[in-house]
Amino acid sequence: MTTVNRRTMLAHAIEGVPQDADFKVAEMSLPEPAAGELQLRHIYLSLDPWQRSAIAGRHSPDGTPMQAGDMPPGEVVAQVAQSRHADFAEGDYVRHMGGWQEYSIADGNLAVKVDAPKAPLSAYLGVLGMPGLTAWASIIKLADIQPGQTVLVSAALGPVGATLGQIALKMGASAVVGIAGSAEKCRYVIEECGFSQCVNYKSPDYLESLQNALPDGADIYHDNVGGQMLIDAIGVMKQYGTVVLCGLISQYNDPALAVNLPVALPIMKRLVMKGLVVYDFYNQQQEFFDLVAPWVNDGSISFREDRAAGIENAGAHFAKLMCGDNVGKSLIVLGDE
Amino acid sequence: MTTVNRRTMLAHAIEGVPQDADFKVAEMSLPEPAAGELQLRHIYLSLDPWQRSAIAGRHSPDGTPMQAGDMPPGEVVAQVAQSRHADFAEGDYVRHMGGWQEYSIADGNLAVKVDAPKAPLSAYLGVLGMPGLTAWASIIKLADIQPGQTVLVSAALGPVGATLGQIALKMGASAVVGIAGSAEKCRYVIEECGFSQCVNYKSPDYLESLQNALPDGADIYHDNVGGQMLIDAIGVMKQYGTVVLCGLISQYNDPALAVNLPVALPIMKRLVMKGLVVYDFYNQQQEFFDLVAPWVNDGSISFREDRAAGIENAGAHFAKLMCGDNVGKSLIVLGDE
Repeated sequence: MTTVNRRTMLAHAIEGVPQDADFKVAEMSLPEPAAGELQLRHIYLSLDPWQRSAIAGRHSPDGTPMQAGDMPPGEVVAQVAQSRHADFAEGDYVRHMGGWQEYSIADGNLAVKVDAPKAPLSAYLGVLGMPGLTAWASIIKLADIQPGQTVLVSAALGPVGATLGQIALKMGASAVVGIAGSAEKCRYVIEECGFSQCVNYKSPDYLESLQNALPDGADIYHDNVGGQMLIDAIGVMKQYGTVVLCGLISQYNDPALAVNLPVALPIMKRLVMKGLVVYDFYNQQQEFFDLVAPWVNDGSISFREDRAAGIENAGAHFAKLMCGDNVGKSLIVLGDE
Repeated sequence: MTTVNRRTMLAHAIEGVPQDADFKVAEMSLPEPAAGELQLRHIYLSLDPWQRSAIAGRHSPDGTPMQAGDMPPGEVVAQVAQSRHADFAEGDYVRHMGGWQEYSIADGNLAVKVDAPKAPLSAYLGVLGMPGLTAWASIIKLADIQPGQTVLVSAALGPVGATLGQIALKMGASAVVGIAGSAEKCRYVIEECGFSQCVNYKSPDYLESLQNALPDGADIYHDNVGGQMLIDAIGVMKQYGTVVLCGLISQYNDPALAVNLPVALPIMKRLVMKGLVVYDFYNQQQEFFDLVAPWVNDGSISFREDRAAGIENAGAHFAKLMCGDNVGKSLIVLGDE
């Protein structure tokens, strides 16, 4: 029996902010898995800002942008439909870089089993997935947060920011201040995630509010955004504070718009700035999971998702994400659990 | 008896690269020291790139540039001509922020005695002075150099760079590579300071030479320059390396020419970047001195000076420094030891 697979691919090379019309859906038959492979039925597809960089070619060795017919990458939570790998049985749940499609054929060695999931399956793409690992690596491993410190985080309602702020509070942060792009987002991170304060960067009194939220400055800033937001955040850092440089949302759509960093700022503040790439922490996932999964399972760390259904809506939902109009972790529901 | 003092001051506010004609000399009588004060006879005046920033007003609280008649700041080695402070006797040698002049009246609490100097007195403005302290703080305290590491340093023949490279070698660096602006400077840091290699940034094959000098990359880079040189240096850093951000010579003459840092670069390299301001280490000068002074005294750390005589030549000599045409520590000889 041939399985019909549907895939969202580029309609053409993309410039600037993605739009729904930049994508198209194609149907194709899915081959049978070879020895060592799995046939995966995708349940949730994760949409993340880094995929915009991949579309632009910045994740490929030769920098070639993706073209018409190319499928964006993306992590999925999936169920094993057929297994030809000894470690997996039909019905197992896995995480895999399966891409923007309903099914995939996976090298079993590259799939990660989701054993006896207690949290909702979709959480393994967010708070317990790569974004959560990023948050943990930043605040625990790079910033080495200590009780009583103050923390600032941008993209505060995104799955990295919201998780990071909540881990910081668990570790004894005296204050966690978020930066987000709407009053609704700010309300959520305060009411649901327990942040001390949240500042709307689209508000005309943003800089003043930021200073008021951190009258003594921040010990730690996690930067998902880059550009002017990083510059403004450095303005409210304490001397000798730590900045984790992790994301550049401000320039993923158009690197030509990048606002680079005046080096005098970190010198004058005597900052420590550390670059973070989450891949480096894949082999420490168990340590992350042991710390954070219990908090997710007992409900003391909350998360919000921005869902859409159907692979045909991946393009529009991604466009929403890349405009910053998502409210929470962006994902596509592709099938039943 | 009234002491006649001569002072070099601004002829007018300065824009861009300083020139001799931007300065003028004035004579004035020197007042007698009040209680707690010292009258100092200056012997050596230190000229340093940071003074360009001070002239531009970037060291003053309100940012006002210096005007006609204002005297640039500068550290001096001086002899106490009259003392009205219990800790000092006539004839003592001191370091003090005495400015571009032949004499000064100093608050005794702000002068630092040079006790029983073994090294040449002028060394207390360079290898054993603020530049040396900067080098020590960078390579020992911030970069925490370990044996076997590779070190890259810009402005390699300047008193910070040359001292830093030699301390690194003493601490077991496997290679120290300098960046300098002429073949003569490069020859000196290799032959006299023991650097492994030195690359001339004005050479057309600079980037290739830099890569060849560090085939496996640098663990540590000390940046005195900022701008494109920092960007190029990051290109030869190892992943997880440390960059100490310390100086911005590239933009002291004209901040409008500043080349800012694309934040993607330190992220991709997973760098740790640390801002250094030497004032923070003033209270650790003894620790620095205990380590480095013996090496200066036994001649195993060498240093070069670029001297001119007479306060009337301070402007021209400073202009030479700010063009990068100095070869070694820039200083003005103002009197006999």
